[in-house]
Order: sequence, then C-alpha cells, then structure tokens
Amino acid sequence: MAILGVGLIGGSVARALKKGELCSHIVGYGRSRANLDAAIRLGVVDSIEKSAKAACKGADLVVLATPVETFKPLVTEIASALEPGAIVIDAGSIKGELVREIESMMPSGVRFIGCHPIAGSERSGVHASTDTLFEGALCIITPTGKTDSRALDMVSLLWESFGCMVESMDPDEHDRVYSAVSHFPHLVAYAIVNAASEEVVGSLKYAGSGFKDTTRIAMSPAELWKNICIMNRSNVSGMVGRLIDELKQMKKMLDSADGKGLYEAFNRAAETRREIGD
Amino acid sequence: MAILGVGLIGGSVARALKKGELCSHIVGYGRSRANLDAAIRLGVVDSIEKSAKAACKGADLVVLATPVETFKPLVTEIASALEPGAIVIDAGSIKGELVREIESMMPSGVRFIGCHPIAGSERSGVHASTDTLFEGALCIITPTGKTDSRALDMVSLLWESFGCMVESMDPDEHDRVYSAVSHFPHLVAYAIVNAASEEVVGSLKYAGSGFKDTTRIAMSPAELWKNICIMNRSNVSGMVGRLIDELKQMKKMLDSADGKGLYEAFNRAAETRREIGD
Repeated sequence: MAILGVGLIGGSVARALKKGELCSHIVGYGRSRANLDAAIRLGVVDSIEKSAKAACKGADLVVLATPVETFKPLVTEIASALEPGAIVIDAGSIKGELVREIESMMPSGVRFIGCHPIAGSERSGVHASTDTLFEGALCIITPTGKTDSRALDMVSLLWESFGCMVESMDPDEHDRVYSAVSHFPHLVAYAIVNAASEEVVGSLKYAGSGFKDTTRIAMSPAELWKNICIMNRSNVSGMVGRLIDELKQMKKMLDSADGKGLYEAFNRAAETRREIGD
Repeated sequence: MAILGVGLIGGSVARALKKGELCSHIVGYGRSRANLDAAIRLGVVDSIEKSAKAACKGADLVVLATPVETFKPLVTEIASALEPGAIVIDAGSIKGELVREIESMMPSGVRFIGCHPIAGSERSGVHASTDTLFEGALCIITPTGKTDSRALDMVSLLWESFGCMVESMDPDEHDRVYSAVSHFPHLVAYAIVNAASEEVVGSLKYAGSGFKDTTRIAMSPAELWKNICIMNRSNVSGMVGRLIDELKQMKKMLDSADGKGLYEAFNRAAETRREIGD
C-alpha cells in the first residue's frame, strides 16, 4: 500500500491499517524529507520512496493524502505505475468535478473512490497522526455513475474498520453541503476579523469568548483555505451571496429600527442552531 | 443598597457586596416573584420589595441590573425616591446616549456612573449568580463631562474590590468597540445560520466543530440581542455595512479565481486573529 502525503491524515490511515493488520507493507511518499524520516522512525510506514510513482509500483491501495490542489498533477505522475486491480482513494475535502476528473485519469482496471473523512485538528504532520483519529468520525464516500460497486464496498469496509461511520453522497452534493458548513464559515470568519479590526481599530483587545469562538477558525492556515475556497468557488460564492442578502435585510431592519423583524430573523437562527447542540 | 434585577449579574453584585462586608442591608426588586423568593432563600438579598421605588428608598447605592431596555422607565419610576448623596450604577452592555440620558434624569445630588462588567454566561437567574463572577473580569466605566469624580473613584474601588480590572472609556467609544467585538458578531452568527440552513437545506447535520464554534453565540436569546442591536443600531449597522463590503470583495475574488487576493485577505485576518489567542 502507498500513502502519498504522510501527514495527520495519511499517517493516521497508515497507523490504522497497521493496527488492524490490514497490510503487509506500507510505502510512504511526501515532499518533506524530515517528515518522511520521522514516519519511518515512528514505524508509521515501512519504507519511503523519492517519487510518488515509485511509491505506487505494485500497490494494491494508493491513498492520496496530500493537499487537494496537488491531486491532479500527482495522479498524472503515478497513472502509468498503477496496476490493474489497484484501488486509489483520496482524503480531500473537495469532491464534485475533481472526483470525475481523477476517475477519468485512471488506467484500465484501476478503480478510484473519492473519500472525505471528517477528521482533523489544528495539528499537522506525521507527529500528529494517531491510530484512533477516525474513531467515531464521519467519512463521506462519493461514488459516481461509473463507480465499481465491489471497490466501493471494500473502501467502505476499510473506513468502517477504522471506526468511521460511512455515508455515501453525490460528489456535487458533498461540495454544496461542505461549502455551507465548512468552507463558507471559514471565509466569513476571516471577513469578520478584518471588518472588526479595520472598522474599530484597537477593538480586538476587548474581544471576549463570544468573538473568540466566532472567529476561532480564522486562525486556520490562509493558504489551505484559499485553495479550498477557490476549488469550490461556485458553491462558496453562492453562499457568500446568500449571506450578503441576509445581512442586507438585517441592516435594513436595524436602520428602520424594525425590532420585530430582527427578532424573527434572530429567533429563527437560534432555534435552528440549538437543534445541532453545543 | 438596592439591586434592581436580582439575576446573574445583580445577584453576583449582591453576593460580592456581602462577601466583602460592604453593606448592612440589601433590598432586592425584580419582575419574577419566584426568582426573588429564591434570592431571599439563598441569602443573596436581605429583603424584597414589590416596587422598584420602594426598594430604592433610603438606598446609598442603587444597581440597575435589569435588561438594558428597561433602564429609562425604571429610572423615571425611582427618581423621586432617590435621596441626595445616593449613587446609581448600571451593569448594562449599552452606554453612549443612554448614559447621558440617565444622568440627566437624576435628581439633584444623586450621581450616576455607567458601568459594564464584561462577565456573563449562558446561565441566567439568581441561581446562576456567584460571589466570584467578577474576579479577573474587565469592567468598563463610562464617565461623561458631568461625572462627579468622587463618585467615580468610589465606584471604581467597588468593582476593584469584586476583583475586576476597571477601565474608563468614553460612552460612545464603548458602544463602537462593543458593536465590533460583541453586538455585530452576534448578528452575523444568526445570519450565518440562516444562510447555511436555508441555502443548503439539511446541511447543518454535517456541521463540525468549526461551524459550531462560529455560530455558538447564535444560540443566545433572540430577544436580548435584538434589543441590544436595536439600541446600538447605528454602530451595528455600520459594522454590518463594513462586513458586506468585505464579503463583496472576497466574492469578487472567488468569482475571478483571484487566489492571491483571497490569500492576502485571509492571511491578514489570520495574523490579526492569532494576536488575541485562542
């Protein structure tokens, strides 16, 4: 088995595979030599290769766990090394068109299954990986009309063996859902920080737990979320447009001192939000 | 001393006064009879009165700790019962014009000092009050050009004796700062929930910790935050307008796939947000 990108997610997949005694030999590949050396030292992988292509030779399972924007060039590189019967999965947070493109790049007899384990943390790198990262986590699997059903079953069982709850979703629906609950909230958190800090200079030192909660994800790496938002830009843009409309309505209520309208908008949100718990 | 509104804040002021042995007798007044009975039973107040006016008779210190929109009618009611030498303070989250209005309603010889202890929790009522609520909390005091300096010193020492760090701020500046870091983020959190749940129906069941953090304050009581946003509407409206501008710029970057611009906007926010810690 080959893990491309032995970081938090890739390292945790490797550890979970080893814990379940699901493979005999794991090859690691990644950009950072120091991280790969640590992966060997920690016993997360059994060997490392200098190229992704070499890592994939003879692999039954290839896991794409590098940043999502690298998937297409990576697949272009490894395609000729993939052997019939192999299964390729990813662990990226963008699906949609990308899943169909990667699927179409697979050589004959090689099956691709798009996966998105909803697991992560602020930490990164192989040192942050654990064999329990996926326990109790949701893993979205995104089959297309061309997906091989046997490979789909095998991949589902694999994630379930890691402790995931597996749910199938259309790749486009996945990107719509995660634009709403993940990509768009990150963008808005960044925008709130800029608006507050630039409109009332010096105000942030008075921020309490409410402001901190609301903008905690604005501490996330800008590069990562820029890439995700750009890759899912049509959905994220739609969400931002929707929020602008909602804010314009609320601003109108403020400007006309329409307390009744504002109460109704706030209360609708409060009731909806309370349904998903703390 | 009279506490008008013996809830989380008013009850905690009473408990801190008793703990510091700073007064001989505390009278409580409030709308809920059950809450007042509990305040007596818990020893938070020594007696209760059926009217705010009766509670204030002979009081050296009156604390307005009811919802902020009730302050003006309440002061109108109690004014004739206030005796020269008395000090009136509040604990509301709106200052600005309201402070100057209440100040002008004071009878001759009665001093008003606007106060905003930045302490609270999701819990409410006298049962939630503690004698340590203010320990380590910031308390903003908002003197005006007419404020009596002796009364100001006494009130500062009072909050400091509760464990507060006291900071003076112009009443209008207070409302600008707290629109940015508190009132506006509440409105936005409500708007995010409405936008996400209405644009992608069913998406909220996929919400993870990022979405939950970002919208946690949208579980706050709609009535309370509607009143605060309406009372501070010119500042809050200004902030919302600023956010709409910021979001429009980001949407334009998304629509033109301007990754560089988006990275810069995200990274500026990330760096600013990291400065105030987790």
